[in-house]
Amino acid sequence: MTASSPVSFALPAGAAPVACVDIGGTKVAVAIVDARGVQGRLVEPTVKQGDVTALAQQVLRMIDASARAARIAPHDLAAVGVAACGPFVLNQGRVELAAPNICGGLAGSARGLPNDWRTAVLEAPLHDAFPGVRVENDGVAALQAERRWGALQGMDHCAYITWSTGIGAGLCVDGRVLRGKNGNAGHAGHMFVVDNADALCGCGNVGDLEALVAGNALPRRFTQYPDAASILIAAKSGDASAKAIVDEVCRVMGRALYNLIATLDLERISLGGSVFWHHRDYLLPRLQAEIQGKLPALTDGCTLVPAGLGEQVGDYAALALVA
Amino acid sequence: MTASSPVSFALPAGAAPVACVDIGGTKVAVAIVDARGVQGRLVEPTVKQGDVTALAQQVLRMIDASARAARIAPHDLAAVGVAACGPFVLNQGRVELAAPNICGGLAGSARGLPNDWRTAVLEAPLHDAFPGVRVENDGVAALQAERRWGALQGMDHCAYITWSTGIGAGLCVDGRVLRGKNGNAGHAGHMFVVDNADALCGCGNVGDLEALVAGNALPRRFTQYPDAASILIAAKSGDASAKAIVDEVCRVMGRALYNLIATLDLERISLGGSVFWHHRDYLLPRLQAEIQGKLPALTDGCTLVPAGLGEQVGDYAALALVA
Repeated sequence: MTASSPVSFALPAGAAPVACVDIGGTKVAVAIVDARGVQGRLVEPTVKQGDVTALAQQVLRMIDASARAARIAPHDLAAVGVAACGPFVLNQGRVELAAPNICGGLAGSARGLPNDWRTAVLEAPLHDAFPGVRVENDGVAALQAERRWGALQGMDHCAYITWSTGIGAGLCVDGRVLRGKNGNAGHAGHMFVVDNADALCGCGNVGDLEALVAGNALPRRFTQYPDAASILIAAKSGDASAKAIVDEVCRVMGRALYNLIATLDLERISLGGSVFWHHRDYLLPRLQAEIQGKLPALTDGCTLVPAGLGEQVGDYAALALVA
Repeated sequence: MTASSPVSFALPAGAAPVACVDIGGTKVAVAIVDARGVQGRLVEPTVKQGDVTALAQQVLRMIDASARAARIAPHDLAAVGVAACGPFVLNQGRVELAAPNICGGLAGSARGLPNDWRTAVLEAPLHDAFPGVRVENDGVAALQAERRWGALQGMDHCAYITWSTGIGAGLCVDGRVLRGKNGNAGHAGHMFVVDNADALCGCGNVGDLEALVAGNALPRRFTQYPDAASILIAAKSGDASAKAIVDEVCRVMGRALYNLIATLDLERISLGGSVFWHHRDYLLPRLQAEIQGKLPALTDGCTLVPAGLGEQVGDYAALALVA
């Protein structure tokens, strides 16, 4: 359990404290926010062993520890916002996670996750403890944070894309955030945009966007590099073979962004996530070049921008659900 | 100018008459609907010669003729609903069409259209004559007709796809029809879903969905057949090479349908259009097979169905805007 630097945000004086939970495939972050600002922030690796309730138990334990660190009684929390990686499935109306990077039972043994879960139980035990819990897809929550405090303020037709361990999205059209039948609108990371017959995604798809360009996909596809950052650093230093990889990756990602623009008639897309953020100056013009000139009636009025909340999008995402 | 069979629909007794206009790349249809039902329906080939106002002048002339045939004074029309192929661009807030199958100035000389229009003026002259005009993308209007009278009744998360001369779509998420910044949401026909480097779309894209599978694309790509219907008839009769073409076409179209499900978390997609409708028993199971098994958390709860309004979707589309 490690503490990291807090976001700079405080609720209005007198507002009751809220808990903000961010569940990703790699880590779980929990913080309390009240009129003093962010308190008792905790980060742990995502629990992937034990039974299907193990992740929910981790979250409950971390909320309790975070509240204690903030010197707040857990029952004084007014609400709990949870931004979680998806997809979601609903079991008796409560969200469970069928997330490829958490549940080992989705793509067979090919991905080496230490469990055989088809889903991870989440909302039901949280709701028993905190009736004011609100669970939302992390891309959808991040979009709300970007619309409220970031680069999508005032935008009625927009998307937020996270290019990180996986690929996630939140979508907004006509001023309304899209949710879909199970809250899974925005799973654009699992679109097919090119032909590929050998890159296995954690969801079981072969050759979808996430399988081709996500942070965890790149070192699986290009095994001469230990991680995505190494490829980008080599490309930026002029290595021709790394540059060819990045150009192809941007062609694929650019098609996906274009597909969203053509399908939803967007005016702005903001991008974040660890892969994009640390190399945004190099990646953004390459992505823009893929969109430039395609169906001008739709693309001409649409811009790509870096996330206004930068690396803190994830921190603000859960807060946008309850603040 | 030819008359064709009317749709079976009448407004409530005492309701003022409305004009319904359907503008496609091949034909323009106009009808009056009042308490008696559909009156004075006219169909003409879409005007593509003259100046950029020629199409709007055609529509005005046809509304006038249709009203006279229905023995109604044009100024007694309560509203004019126009379902038009897109994309739209807005000029001083009024819709103009930047439609690849009408405007010869979009894809260069490669498509052989007899004009060099970048857009066809539409809404402004109609609005001058009929302040109650409402112009909507034809896919969006057809979706509204399918939700009101067809196979999408009661569906909050759904799409209507027309597989015809071109590929169009209307989208609905969380019970709300999507429009986008210029009313162009639903241009999913211009998505990229596979690799292709030689099929030119009328919009200027190379290898997008419409360039690969639309009714006007198939005989351009497979020149041994005079039209799309010939390919489908040959495939259904057991011709191996035609069957291979249809299987590949269904792979491409199936990916596009899957992309919409993954992006928007839909519960139902209804399909119509001349290519699909006449061969729906052959095509539907092939499209379903492309979706089956992909990202089950999103696809399991989603069904593909033939349009409830059948071949009359286009007739009902404009009516859904004003009835």
